[in-house]
Amino acid sequence: MTDSEQYRVRQEPFYRQQGNEVALYAAAYAARLPVMVKGPTGCGKSRFIEYMAWKLDRPLITVACNEDMTASDLVGRYLLEAGGTRWLDGPLTTAARIGAICYLDEIVEARQDTTVVIHPLTDHRRTLPLDKKGELLRAHVDFQLVISYNPGYQSLMKDLKQSTKQRFTAFDFDYPEAELEATILASESGIDRALAAQLVAVGTAARRLKGHGLDEGVSTRLLVYAATLVRHGVAAGDACRMALVRPITDDRDIRETLEHAIDAIFA
Amino acid sequence: MTDSEQYRVRQEPFYRQQGNEVALYAAAYAARLPVMVKGPTGCGKSRFIEYMAWKLDRPLITVACNEDMTASDLVGRYLLEAGGTRWLDGPLTTAARIGAICYLDEIVEARQDTTVVIHPLTDHRRTLPLDKKGELLRAHVDFQLVISYNPGYQSLMKDLKQSTKQRFTAFDFDYPEAELEATILASESGIDRALAAQLVAVGTAARRLKGHGLDEGVSTRLLVYAATLVRHGVAAGDACRMALVRPITDDRDIRETLEHAIDAIFA
Amino acid sequence: MTDSEQYRVRQEPFYRQQGNEVALYAAAYAARLPVMVKGPTGCGKSRFIEYMAWKLDRPLITVACNEDMTASDLVGRYLLEAGGTRWLDGPLTTAARIGAICYLDEIVEARQDTTVVIHPLTDHRRTLPLDKKGELLRAHVDFQLVISYNPGYQSLMKDLKQSTKQRFTAFDFDYPEAELEATILASESGIDRALAAQLVAVGTAARRLKGHGLDEGVSTRLLVYAATLVRHGVAAGDACRMALVRPITDDRDIRETLEHAIDAIFA
Amino acid sequence: MTDSEQYRVRQEPFYRQQGNEVALYAAAYAARLPVMVKGPTGCGKSRFIEYMAWKLDRPLITVACNEDMTASDLVGRYLLEAGGTRWLDGPLTTAARIGAICYLDEIVEARQDTTVVIHPLTDHRRTLPLDKKGELLRAHVDFQLVISYNPGYQSLMKDLKQSTKQRFTAFDFDYPEAELEATILASESGIDRALAAQLVAVGTAARRLKGHGLDEGVSTRLLVYAATLVRHGVAAGDACRMALVRPITDDRDIRETLEHAIDAIFA
Amino acid sequence: MTDSEQYRVRQEPFYRQQGNEVALYAAAYAARLPVMVKGPTGCGKSRFIEYMAWKLDRPLITVACNEDMTASDLVGRYLLEAGGTRWLDGPLTTAARIGAICYLDEIVEARQDTTVVIHPLTDHRRTLPLDKKGELLRAHVDFQLVISYNPGYQSLMKDLKQSTKQRFTAFDFDYPEAELEATILASESGIDRALAAQLVAVGTAARRLKGHGLDEGVSTRLLVYAATLVRHGVAAGDACRMALVRPITDDRDIRETLEHAIDAIFA
Amino acid sequence: MTDSEQYRVRQEPFYRQQGNEVALYAAAYAARLPVMVKGPTGCGKSRFIEYMAWKLDRPLITVACNEDMTASDLVGRYLLEAGGTRWLDGPLTTAARIGAICYLDEIVEARQDTTVVIHPLTDHRRTLPLDKKGELLRAHVDFQLVISYNPGYQSLMKDLKQSTKQRFTAFDFDYPEAELEATILASESGIDRALAAQLVAVGTAARRLKGHGLDEGVSTRLLVYAATLVRHGVAAGDACRMALVRPITDDRDIRETLEHAIDAIFA
Repeated sequence: MTDSEQYRVRQEPFYRQQGNEVALYAAAYAARLPVMVKGPTGCGKSRFIEYMAWKLDRPLITVACNEDMTASDLVGRYLLEAGGTRWLDGPLTTAARIGAICYLDEIVEARQDTTVVIHPLTDHRRTLPLDKKGELLRAHVDFQLVISYNPGYQSLMKDLKQSTKQRFTAFDFDYPEAELEATILASESGIDRALAAQLVAVGTAARRLKGHGLDEGVSTRLLVYAATLVRHGVAAGDACRMALVRPITDDRDIRETLEHAIDAIFA
Repeated sequence: MTDSEQYRVRQEPFYRQQGNEVALYAAAYAARLPVMVKGPTGCGKSRFIEYMAWKLDRPLITVACNEDMTASDLVGRYLLEAGGTRWLDGPLTTAARIGAICYLDEIVEARQDTTVVIHPLTDHRRTLPLDKKGELLRAHVDFQLVISYNPGYQSLMKDLKQSTKQRFTAFDFDYPEAELEATILASESGIDRALAAQLVAVGTAARRLKGHGLDEGVSTRLLVYAATLVRHGVAAGDACRMALVRPITDDRDIRETLEHAIDAIFA
Repeated sequence: MTDSEQYRVRQEPFYRQQGNEVALYAAAYAARLPVMVKGPTGCGKSRFIEYMAWKLDRPLITVACNEDMTASDLVGRYLLEAGGTRWLDGPLTTAARIGAICYLDEIVEARQDTTVVIHPLTDHRRTLPLDKKGELLRAHVDFQLVISYNPGYQSLMKDLKQSTKQRFTAFDFDYPEAELEATILASESGIDRALAAQLVAVGTAARRLKGHGLDEGVSTRLLVYAATLVRHGVAAGDACRMALVRPITDDRDIRETLEHAIDAIFA
Repeated sequence: MTDSEQYRVRQEPFYRQQGNEVALYAAAYAARLPVMVKGPTGCGKSRFIEYMAWKLDRPLITVACNEDMTASDLVGRYLLEAGGTRWLDGPLTTAARIGAICYLDEIVEARQDTTVVIHPLTDHRRTLPLDKKGELLRAHVDFQLVISYNPGYQSLMKDLKQSTKQRFTAFDFDYPEAELEATILASESGIDRALAAQLVAVGTAARRLKGHGLDEGVSTRLLVYAATLVRHGVAAGDACRMALVRPITDDRDIRETLEHAIDAIFA
Repeated sequence: MTDSEQYRVRQEPFYRQQGNEVALYAAAYAARLPVMVKGPTGCGKSRFIEYMAWKLDRPLITVACNEDMTASDLVGRYLLEAGGTRWLDGPLTTAARIGAICYLDEIVEARQDTTVVIHPLTDHRRTLPLDKKGELLRAHVDFQLVISYNPGYQSLMKDLKQSTKQRFTAFDFDYPEAELEATILASESGIDRALAAQLVAVGTAARRLKGHGLDEGVSTRLLVYAATLVRHGVAAGDACRMALVRPITDDRDIRETLEHAIDAIFA
Repeated sequence: MTDSEQYRVRQEPFYRQQGNEVALYAAAYAARLPVMVKGPTGCGKSRFIEYMAWKLDRPLITVACNEDMTASDLVGRYLLEAGGTRWLDGPLTTAARIGAICYLDEIVEARQDTTVVIHPLTDHRRTLPLDKKGELLRAHVDFQLVISYNPGYQSLMKDLKQSTKQRFTAFDFDYPEAELEATILASESGIDRALAAQLVAVGTAARRLKGHGLDEGVSTRLLVYAATLVRHGVAAGDACRMALVRPITDDRDIRETLEHAIDAIFA
């Protein structure tokens, strides 16, 4: 089926296992249990799901949730056409029909109607009522629902309801430990391991400031950016400033602390 | 009638009675009194209604309410088509026409217009005014309205109005006592009773923390998830962490307490 | 006229007069003065209006107001059809055209535009400007406007404006005194007077708790529910719990007090 | 022109002058100055404008403003029809075209876009830009704009902007003094002057409570209601309770005070 | 071009220069710099722009901004027609196309999207992206943007952003000094200079109360109203009350102070 | 391709490098890394991006973000046409298709759905899901995303999320130092360097007041305005008042301080 092919992950995504998460996810998928992946921004949650979709050979439909997203954006809507209206499945409906893994990224950003609409897909019913169409869709046997969730961000005002949380099995993620992270940097950017280790050292310094002036540490993604800039001829210090300092803070003191770390590491 | 068949519960749902609720519900249905089912998340409220619909041989139309749901989503709307507009009954209207049980799940999540729209269906009138269509629908003689309600969640801002509450007879639900819950786990997942009892012990430990750091205990549903993971080859400890710890809390202390309980029970 | 017939009250509704309200209402109708009925939920306000419509032989159009209701929902709107747009009268416009009694239930729930739109229908003008249609509708000579209002619910944020209040004559309603209420219970459910009196005693006990932990007492409607359940074979205690306790409170202490009352009365 | 005739005041409205307001209004109209009428609810502001429209032989278009009213509701909008869209003038545009007096009742209730849209009609430009139609409408030479305004209601949040106020000449209104008010009651309801004077005495008593528990006194309109009920055979005391007490307050003490006044006056 | 003619100022507007503002504006227009005119309500800001448009022989398109105005109201939108949709330029787009002066009156009232949409028209780009049409409009060489702004009204919540302010050259306006204001009154209403001077004296008295109970003084426009009423036969005291007292305040003390001033001046 | 040509920067924009930002940007573009430019209003951020687009010979699509902008405004929407609906790419989609640099100006002004919609375009996926069209767009190899950000404006309520920030490399901008700024003024307006230096001195004086009564200093753009007015014959003092004083503050004391500076510099 064409739809299905479009969402197939074509190449093995680069992913290094941190524990036994691959086997555990495979078991959850085998039982078709809904999965929640938790962890800070840019630590590889999306990459893991992409990898599992490739490994399990399932199409993957990713939806970046946001506070203006409505249930209709997930489920579908009627389009007006020459000969009347035509129903257009939303990404969640498509996934349920073709048996894809549906990955709702940063689900808490969405309005509550989107979180409630997934409930009947996450219990023994495995159905999705398309109320506007008068259809009760029974999910494809291969369909699975996955959501991501960054606990650090949640406030009292914006959190998943217990009645949603209690519908998922969960995985904890974090930044990879130093050795592995250096390997990732070298593989993704093409710089040598020594330099990669130095950049990881800068990242480690920045992560220590989390909660002491920084809301969040430096993600693996930003470290890969810095490595890539160096690979394109930018001096290491400039690359660190562009990718690891300026994007994450405007605080003068924090910036100075980070500059000192950079100077010390690349001295 | 096709519509009616689509909403028929095809197989007897697995349900173990906790008291005389089956007989009481049957009496309420015989008098066509509206019913409210109250209780914590994942304790089996929806399953009970599904079971009663099967037992009474009535179609069941379930609507997951949410704060973006409007009266039109329940009642119906006009669709634009090639030859003009066509009226499409909403799920509540369909239920009233075909004589189904209409189950509005988590009604307090909905906007107030949806709660007011059900009023004339819940008193001696048993009518539903389709104002936009200019039709006064008299409900099918077999129609019944059921709503669910989780008292633990309600705040001053979001509660049912007295003028709504005073239109329902009510049932209280809670998690099943330990023996029954173990039986449920064994039946649903296929694991043996001894292991099921151990998992129920973990659930009991978690439920004791409710109000002492946990907003809500562990639901029967999550216990079934854990049992299912074990059945798919996951170690008991890993299964508990995936299904009973990580989904419900990120608090370090609570997590530790739960880990201790798991270690003790599976030691 | 077809429309008119659809809204005719077909059978004499069961209604027991509490004072001289029938004669006073008849005078207000004779002068076509707008009427406001005030009182707690489920005390018989809607039933009284239904009864008067039957007695005066006028069609009755009831609208359950809600906070998402707009002036267009009352007045009417254009519908898109094959050959262009078609105007559809709303319930208020229909009532003004056919000379019905228009009963706006819980008017304060509505948005202010709906309360302002009724102003020219409630003074010497007796007109309804259909601005979107460019028509100034002069009300049928038999048309009358009635609104209901529960003073107990109103807050500073949600109250009728003085410029609206000062357009109505008003009736005060309350729960019927015990003798009459027992008669109503017996008539409506078919149980005997002795049992009816016992249920009324439970209701009286609950009403004494209003303001001492209960927002609202038990309505006559809930007493009828309890009577009906008994009539369908439910034990009196169970019927009271289902209809008079659980729907109105989750407070442990209040529930206990009510249980004691039930035990004492049915001992 | 048909439109114009529809808005013509057909009969001389009953109006008793309180001072020289008729001559002053005539001068303001002769100079086509915009007019603001100020005063409490139900004191006869709308009646005065109706009277002046009749006296000056101008069509009158009245708009009851409300907080959901948009500029489009005043100015006009496109309607979809079989052969495309058709522009429909709003009431303000119609008034500006046919040379009517346009009376915006309770203007502060409207959203600010409606108050700004009238600005170019109230200075030397006397134009109304129909932006959506690409037309700059120059008002008919007989057009005049009138707004009403109840100073007692205004709060800091909801008041006319100075840039709007400074575009109007203004009239102050209040309830008529006792003699005149009794004459009005007698004329409008057909009761005799003695009884009318007694009802006015009740009204005077109620107005003394304004600011001492009552937000607003009793309007002339409510006094006319009471008189009308008496004329239809209702006892004076009952008529006062229905029209002068219950609609305006639920406060037990205030109600008692008013009851005493009624008893004393009709003793 | 027809559009252009419709917006041409046909007659020289009455305008008396207060300083060298005419020459300075001409220089700003010659350099096509955006202009902001600041000052209290009714002091002649709009009249000045109208005068300059006449003097520079440019069409003038005025838009009264309001908080419900969206970028689409300024830029344009698609209209549905028989043969599909048709794009309709908004007033800003029309002005940019035909080389008009576009005057956005009370810009801070508008939503922020309207203030951001003007940015690319106010720097070296002089472009207007019509995103919905996929067109990048380059402004006509004669186009100029003018906004008005009343500093007295602005609050913390509603102010122009610095990134908007820093795109305009600015003019300060105020009420004309007494001699000039009397000349304006005499010219506009036709009353004699002596009486005009007396009315200006009343205005001066009122303006002294600004900040001492009055939010804003009396505008030149209201003085012209008073003069016009006198010209139509209204007594000077009545004219002052109608045009200078009642529209601007309901405060008893302030009204008394103003009455004393009127009595003294016209004694 | 036509679209592409429309967005081509036709002439070399005037830009003076302040450091090695041109080389660093070129490296970021070579690696197709997303870029964030930070700095105060009117310091040349937009000019820099325009210059880089010209230098790299890439089309540039600029979007002025605002709080009413939705994801659909960026991504695209369906238009209704004679023969049905037609999809219209939004500016972001167009840029991703044709390989343009897409510059989202003042991104924090936009609603969060617009910031989330760019996420999959800023990591290894480089995709844009057009959910409403059911298409997963893979970005053109030359596409790059750039956003601007003014740290001075951000509040707790309105800031980029860390999960967005950590997707960009960043550049810091500020006003040029005095010598360079005078060169810019002379080049852009045609006045001589001595006068340009005097105007820069006024700007420097104003910038010293930032945080001491002024929210923001005077931008380079306003200095160019002042220079341009002088070039059109306006006296230096008048030009400074029009371009450097009145637009940015209404505070009497600040204005006096600035007047003193102007007098001193042009004495």
